[in-house]
Amino acid sequence: MRSKRSDGQSAGGLGELGLLRQIRSRAAQSSRGGLRLGIGDDCALVAPRDGEELAVTTDLSIAGRHFRLDWHAPEAVGHRALARGLSDLAAMGARPVAAFLSLGLPRELTQAAGRRPAWVQGFLDGLMALAAAHKTPLAGGDLAESPLALADIVLVGAVPRGKALLRSGARAGDLLYVTGALGGAAAGLARLAELAGTPGRNQARPAQPPRIPKKLAALLAPHLYPQPRIAQGLWLRQRGLASAALDLSDGLSTDLAHLCQESGAAAEVEAARLPIHPGATLAQALNGGEDYELLFAAPASARIPRSIGGVAVTMIGRMVKARSGQAAVTLVTAHGPQALQARGWEHFS
Amino acid sequence: MRSKRSDGQSAGGLGELGLLRQIRSRAAQSSRGGLRLGIGDDCALVAPRDGEELAVTTDLSIAGRHFRLDWHAPEAVGHRALARGLSDLAAMGARPVAAFLSLGLPRELTQAAGRRPAWVQGFLDGLMALAAAHKTPLAGGDLAESPLALADIVLVGAVPRGKALLRSGARAGDLLYVTGALGGAAAGLARLAELAGTPGRNQARPAQPPRIPKKLAALLAPHLYPQPRIAQGLWLRQRGLASAALDLSDGLSTDLAHLCQESGAAAEVEAARLPIHPGATLAQALNGGEDYELLFAAPASARIPRSIGGVAVTMIGRMVKARSGQAAVTLVTAHGPQALQARGWEHFS
Repeated sequence: MRSKRSDGQSAGGLGELGLLRQIRSRAAQSSRGGLRLGIGDDCALVAPRDGEELAVTTDLSIAGRHFRLDWHAPEAVGHRALARGLSDLAAMGARPVAAFLSLGLPRELTQAAGRRPAWVQGFLDGLMALAAAHKTPLAGGDLAESPLALADIVLVGAVPRGKALLRSGARAGDLLYVTGALGGAAAGLARLAELAGTPGRNQARPAQPPRIPKKLAALLAPHLYPQPRIAQGLWLRQRGLASAALDLSDGLSTDLAHLCQESGAAAEVEAARLPIHPGATLAQALNGGEDYELLFAAPASARIPRSIGGVAVTMIGRMVKARSGQAAVTLVTAHGPQALQARGWEHFS
Repeated sequence: MRSKRSDGQSAGGLGELGLLRQIRSRAAQSSRGGLRLGIGDDCALVAPRDGEELAVTTDLSIAGRHFRLDWHAPEAVGHRALARGLSDLAAMGARPVAAFLSLGLPRELTQAAGRRPAWVQGFLDGLMALAAAHKTPLAGGDLAESPLALADIVLVGAVPRGKALLRSGARAGDLLYVTGALGGAAAGLARLAELAGTPGRNQARPAQPPRIPKKLAALLAPHLYPQPRIAQGLWLRQRGLASAALDLSDGLSTDLAHLCQESGAAAEVEAARLPIHPGATLAQALNGGEDYELLFAAPASARIPRSIGGVAVTMIGRMVKARSGQAAVTLVTAHGPQALQARGWEHFS
């Protein structure tokens, strides 16, 4: 169970110390903000400003469940792992303060293969690029050799005390909005699966993800490189316009049901209003998940602009009173209203 | 990659929703303290008191690396996973505020087997019992089905701004101390390996950990149920006596080298002074790791008591000037001084 070696280096491998040193050096170049002490001690130290509290979220990404080594480039795996956590901060209206990374990797993913750098380098490239874009320093974490590649990401954000956007504040009569477009991640995933499954590809290196043709890059971007809506969440929180918010990680049908449950209300969504991503289907927009757009409610009197920080905002329906025995979420189509079942992602089911 | 099911229940299994509901209900019973908002939203909200900052640490525990399903009872796995993080808080002199749990489990570990409750119940029992002992609410986390059992634990603690015990403050002339006894965890692990490997045991149920005979329980406790030294860390921090501190997770030889490196100094340890756990060897005390005792430095003028909160404190050596080309840590024995190589745990080596 324990390997009693400490040279920190093995043939072609970085060793834990080598990998730690590299992560520490890359992390040291990142913006600090509220991070008082980063990698190198027993804990990191995070100091909120006076009157702030901290928002904390953790997201586990596991090979074969949340990503596939033969589908996803390491840069995309790193980006997506961090994006999940940043998106949770966005949903609270919090500004990112620090990220933590617990990384379990098979040894071969820490080793360079000929002139190709180690997989973990690409992973860190993708993660650190998104972290830099959101001024989020990497503050710590843990490393372990693991037969299964996995990354648990912790995000810490700051928000004025009592001002965070919660899931529980929506009331009957509020209007429902989403940022951006829906279904793009699911459509991109479907296209990626086709690419990865094309016969004749990758015969020599079965574990390599497919090359993405340039003309498909835009179609795959919502899946491979989702953009957490930090700026939009901050905008909403600062103006106090939203009564409730969450991020669309599991899919609109599932996440809206969560919002209804936490708010003790029900919701009606108008199918015709949904901002469906070009190339995506209605089903993907409703159930696809991983779009990482914000879903929020606001009183009908609130003046919500058509875009925030360059990202479209669309009214998609309204909150209504919960009635016992009736579905929490109703989808209104040209054929009339129908109960919208939660068909998003659930593990252990 | 995504399972589109939402019934939350499968034959004999809890389902993610069921497991979440249960964790949420158990977490709701725990003490709150600085936790303003727990499980159920996109993030938890943690509010330090005025003048405090937050200490954050993450620890990844993976089946086959940090524990074995056929050696460790689920209660011990849950206890040990949380103890690692609490011990990091102890080393900073922080009071625990909240814990987060990212849990990846094979489906069968979430399912009851006949009258035996699901493995995950025992895991949560062990984790929640230690959390309750240290008034640490479970504030959130993530769940995923995984072919490999794993738990990433995040601990958030609070400490007055600028007052945390760091690794970097030790100076030549300071004396070195440890709490408790060393090597007990390694000795316990060795005994556990013998028990688990005894032929004829567990033939019917190869995945079951061995029953621990009562007379061995005390010998195995330092390995199976290590006690994080939260009270001792708080005591040292409140009195401002320690110049540097860390917790002994990787083993004295490795952890003391870390302290020397961060402090820019060297250290001498007197073998005869080491508080070796009954049944443990000198090598286990030096390199065993997982004792989760505190190692700290204090000026020679500081009055350090012989015990803190009922746990022995032993002076084991001193900090000295670093000399280039010389070992950071020297072990002084009856045969004279010798360089002490770091032989603790390292992954990827």
